[in-house]
Amino acid sequence: MSTTVRAQLLLYCPDQPGIIAKVTNFITVNKGNIVYLDQYVDRVENMFFMRIEWELGDFLIPKEKIEDYFNTLYARPYGMYFRLYFSDHKPRMAVFVSKMSHCLYDMLARYTAGEWNVEIPLIISNHPDLQHVAERFDIPFYVFPINKENKLEQEQKEMALLKENGINFIVLARYMQVISPAMIEAYPNRIINIHHSFLPAFVGARPYQAAYDRGVKIIGATSHYVTSELDAGPIIEQDVVRITHKDSVDDLVNKGKDLEKIVLSRAVCKHIDRKCLVYKNRTVIFS
Amino acid sequence: MSTTVRAQLLLYCPDQPGIIAKVTNFITVNKGNIVYLDQYVDRVENMFFMRIEWELGDFLIPKEKIEDYFNTLYARPYGMYFRLYFSDHKPRMAVFVSKMSHCLYDMLARYTAGEWNVEIPLIISNHPDLQHVAERFDIPFYVFPINKENKLEQEQKEMALLKENGINFIVLARYMQVISPAMIEAYPNRIINIHHSFLPAFVGARPYQAAYDRGVKIIGATSHYVTSELDAGPIIEQDVVRITHKDSVDDLVNKGKDLEKIVLSRAVCKHIDRKCLVYKNRTVIFS
Amino acid sequence: MSTTVRAQLLLYCPDQPGIIAKVTNFITVNKGNIVYLDQYVDRVENMFFMRIEWELGDFLIPKEKIEDYFNTLYARPYGMYFRLYFSDHKPRMAVFVSKMSHCLYDMLARYTAGEWNVEIPLIISNHPDLQHVAERFDIPFYVFPINKENKLEQEQKEMALLKENGINFIVLARYMQVISPAMIEAYPNRIINIHHSFLPAFVGARPYQAAYDRGVKIIGATSHYVTSELDAGPIIEQDVVRITHKDSVDDLVNKGKDLEKIVLSRAVCKHIDRKCLVYKNRTVIFS
Amino acid sequence: MSTTVRAQLLLYCPDQPGIIAKVTNFITVNKGNIVYLDQYVDRVENMFFMRIEWELGDFLIPKEKIEDYFNTLYARPYGMYFRLYFSDHKPRMAVFVSKMSHCLYDMLARYTAGEWNVEIPLIISNHPDLQHVAERFDIPFYVFPINKENKLEQEQKEMALLKENGINFIVLARYMQVISPAMIEAYPNRIINIHHSFLPAFVGARPYQAAYDRGVKIIGATSHYVTSELDAGPIIEQDVVRITHKDSVDDLVNKGKDLEKIVLSRAVCKHIDRKCLVYKNRTVIFS
Repeated sequence: MSTTVRAQLLLYCPDQPGIIAKVTNFITVNKGNIVYLDQYVDRVENMFFMRIEWELGDFLIPKEKIEDYFNTLYARPYGMYFRLYFSDHKPRMAVFVSKMSHCLYDMLARYTAGEWNVEIPLIISNHPDLQHVAERFDIPFYVFPINKENKLEQEQKEMALLKENGINFIVLARYMQVISPAMIEAYPNRIINIHHSFLPAFVGARPYQAAYDRGVKIIGATSHYVTSELDAGPIIEQDVVRITHKDSVDDLVNKGKDLEKIVLSRAVCKHIDRKCLVYKNRTVIFS
Repeated sequence: MSTTVRAQLLLYCPDQPGIIAKVTNFITVNKGNIVYLDQYVDRVENMFFMRIEWELGDFLIPKEKIEDYFNTLYARPYGMYFRLYFSDHKPRMAVFVSKMSHCLYDMLARYTAGEWNVEIPLIISNHPDLQHVAERFDIPFYVFPINKENKLEQEQKEMALLKENGINFIVLARYMQVISPAMIEAYPNRIINIHHSFLPAFVGARPYQAAYDRGVKIIGATSHYVTSELDAGPIIEQDVVRITHKDSVDDLVNKGKDLEKIVLSRAVCKHIDRKCLVYKNRTVIFS
Repeated sequence: MSTTVRAQLLLYCPDQPGIIAKVTNFITVNKGNIVYLDQYVDRVENMFFMRIEWELGDFLIPKEKIEDYFNTLYARPYGMYFRLYFSDHKPRMAVFVSKMSHCLYDMLARYTAGEWNVEIPLIISNHPDLQHVAERFDIPFYVFPINKENKLEQEQKEMALLKENGINFIVLARYMQVISPAMIEAYPNRIINIHHSFLPAFVGARPYQAAYDRGVKIIGATSHYVTSELDAGPIIEQDVVRITHKDSVDDLVNKGKDLEKIVLSRAVCKHIDRKCLVYKNRTVIFS
Repeated sequence: MSTTVRAQLLLYCPDQPGIIAKVTNFITVNKGNIVYLDQYVDRVENMFFMRIEWELGDFLIPKEKIEDYFNTLYARPYGMYFRLYFSDHKPRMAVFVSKMSHCLYDMLARYTAGEWNVEIPLIISNHPDLQHVAERFDIPFYVFPINKENKLEQEQKEMALLKENGINFIVLARYMQVISPAMIEAYPNRIINIHHSFLPAFVGARPYQAAYDRGVKIIGATSHYVTSELDAGPIIEQDVVRITHKDSVDDLVNKGKDLEKIVLSRAVCKHIDRKCLVYKNRTVIFS
């Protein structure tokens, strides 16, 4: 693997002739070595989406000035939304859990094995049950019990803790609490949830029971960014598994667990790799 | 393949000790050769479901009296619902279509190739568009244009035609009309529909547009028995295909067509093979 | 849908800085409106692959000179392999069949419904069995019985017929004959086969029996370009379906038929849409 | 959940009329409450396979005598192979690993969460790398470095350790050593391996590289019982995931890891639940 630092640029703007050439030129004339490029034009919205990655080894613009230059030369003139990242900056991720351990274990196994370019400084829960998991992986674990009365107050404390730890994004790993608008606004398109159904089917509580009652032949799981509307945010990843009439609700729960953890981890990985863009409640997931 | 006629018995009843032994004994003591048996106990409802098939070659009870004997000796005493079929009786199936040909072609190709143990005496449509398809396969095609005013009247004519042709069950192959309660009641659990979404997501009209708008990463198709509640009948078969942000609504329509025809044909095949039982809006699909 | 004619350019060349910018500039400075662009860099081979499509409405270079200009200005200087197509030219496709009809019906249903931008001037078979299918769709059907002695001679006649009909590519729709090298060389990467297994598993004859004997839990189908090595050409598309110990060889054959026809039709569609490039026995399939 | 101990009987024998009735009668006349029954007839081999489970609460035959009675009354007369288990006996499982942690973590997460009715008294490895994983879950970890010279000697020590710990079956969780015949014979159909390909494709070493080179569009993983022939034992479970030309070998490795761990865990779960029977190198997997 190369150890050269790479810049990662994600952007969208109204589509226009020559836009790819303009952006790639910016990089190549400044001696950046492009190592990744994926783009897509939404013909309905007439929007151009792009992710481009280049090595900074010989890049003529100093790392700390790239954002400013790009903003001045391209983003403003072309009406672009863009985000710039660097491969040597590990995003910092907080995990929220309740009582079920399967998603947490799956993520910590990948984290500990060095598969993810991320830091996990803390785990937050509304129950003490999974403290032992955090301890096995030597990650600080904070319990904030939540009820109707103390919810906003506890979330304030959580947000202070997140800020203190420089958290960039949050993963709800089967966290059984609805997040309040204030926290969602503080982390726009940066709270990733796993819902244990094939959304938009079976929104809300007890989706496996609902799937059983409806008699579906396939169940699913959906990972999405959290927005103010419950289970209605932009979908990052989904997957499904076939069931039969022989499967009880408990069987669905067990088969679903494997879906949930894999779908959530795939979504988190895409987010860590800066491969997700959100536009009008839909995601563009780069290759 | 054996040319011996086989009896096919589907049943359900409250579960009780020894029920399998009782039913299988009925067949074996009367010298029936069991060639298929699949059973299932629903532990929630405490119901026993069974499908059993046996060769009639040396069977001691005359074919035409089996139903009566079984009813007297087992069905009444054990509170059974049952249906008895014979392999030498081909069910008669009517196909309803509108303007899209993919499901119709798929079924007629199987029918013409002799894959299905069924007769298709006629095709009914509310539009003349697919007459040429029926002609290619030499199947009578009847057009009943439908509007708000004439709907019940036209359905009466359709039902007369179905009766006249001895139709046992109906397949709605992308038929773009809601079936009225009178026709549904005349064919209980014998009208098979294909809905172009992964039910219960995207009930009703324009599901591909709705799937696109919601930004799902997987689309599906669902075949179900028609009941009085729209798109809410017992599901026979579902399948899905992965999509990405690059897929337009037209792409979804095209990918969906392949799903629809395969899912519908699988469901119809299960029905023809008498492998479906309905209980409380859920299906038991035997192996 | 736009009725403007579009140019479709597929190319690959050694990767180099600015190559996307150069190609897109060629189009935009000549007033072509790019409506599709997909590219990919193979980092192992250091090769750049691209498919780009633009509307010719206001394009400054005359349609018949584009190939020459592009060749002179880009292909030679950059060591490119490229192919240029126009959306108003329908490729001409021959179908080869033997005795099984499912793939043939599936393709003709799409063709007749106008889903594919292709002409099918003829169907060729080594058996007369499927003549009735060709007749249903009013397509000329030619029988060339083949045995060890007459094989090369018959293929010569087939090739004359193909040439006479201006055939661009061939689809082997469960054609149960190995194609001789001479014919393969005449249609390099332009003969599409469907093999009824998940290649490279179960090469050769009777793959369903082999899959049954091995006790696999999933079966597949593979569509690939034909090369001189049996079942070893570049793979265009594959798909699979789950089976169980309950499935007999006949069940595998039946489940496999649905796979075969869908996989073959997907591959043919990609080929018709000029979305396949072959490099070193692997395909690049554009989105 | 019921806390009553249940007997679990798996058997196969030549098919014969009334065999289900005979076995179910044995249980019901002795006042056993049947809570599970799945059966299957292999029409090619004319073999009958069955798994039946009943509550022992009021069973008239003492638990320790059931095996003897069943053997005398049914197994011998009908030429049955059978195995009898009890739900209150947890099988004891050893895990063999080398350097990759994903399968190990996945199993230990399930084990620690109480999802599996199993004991894992020890982990064995030919490398020290994963000691830290074993320590996180407080499971003894033994290192037996293996080379050509010491292989048989080290396996003798391993087998002594397995015996000492009362191990019933072994799981090779990406253990990168071929098991010698002596150990395979000591655990017939009781060593479960995960192979990182869709067998029988890509037997042996480096299957992801081979899959990449062949240009397949789908990769898979296979869990099977180990036999003396490499990667050729009875398949318990397989699954696949779609890839594209954009996926590098590293991408295949990463996508494959998720397949491997899920497929292996599913297979192990089936084995723990006593739902696998092997007959002539094929498995019957009960529902």
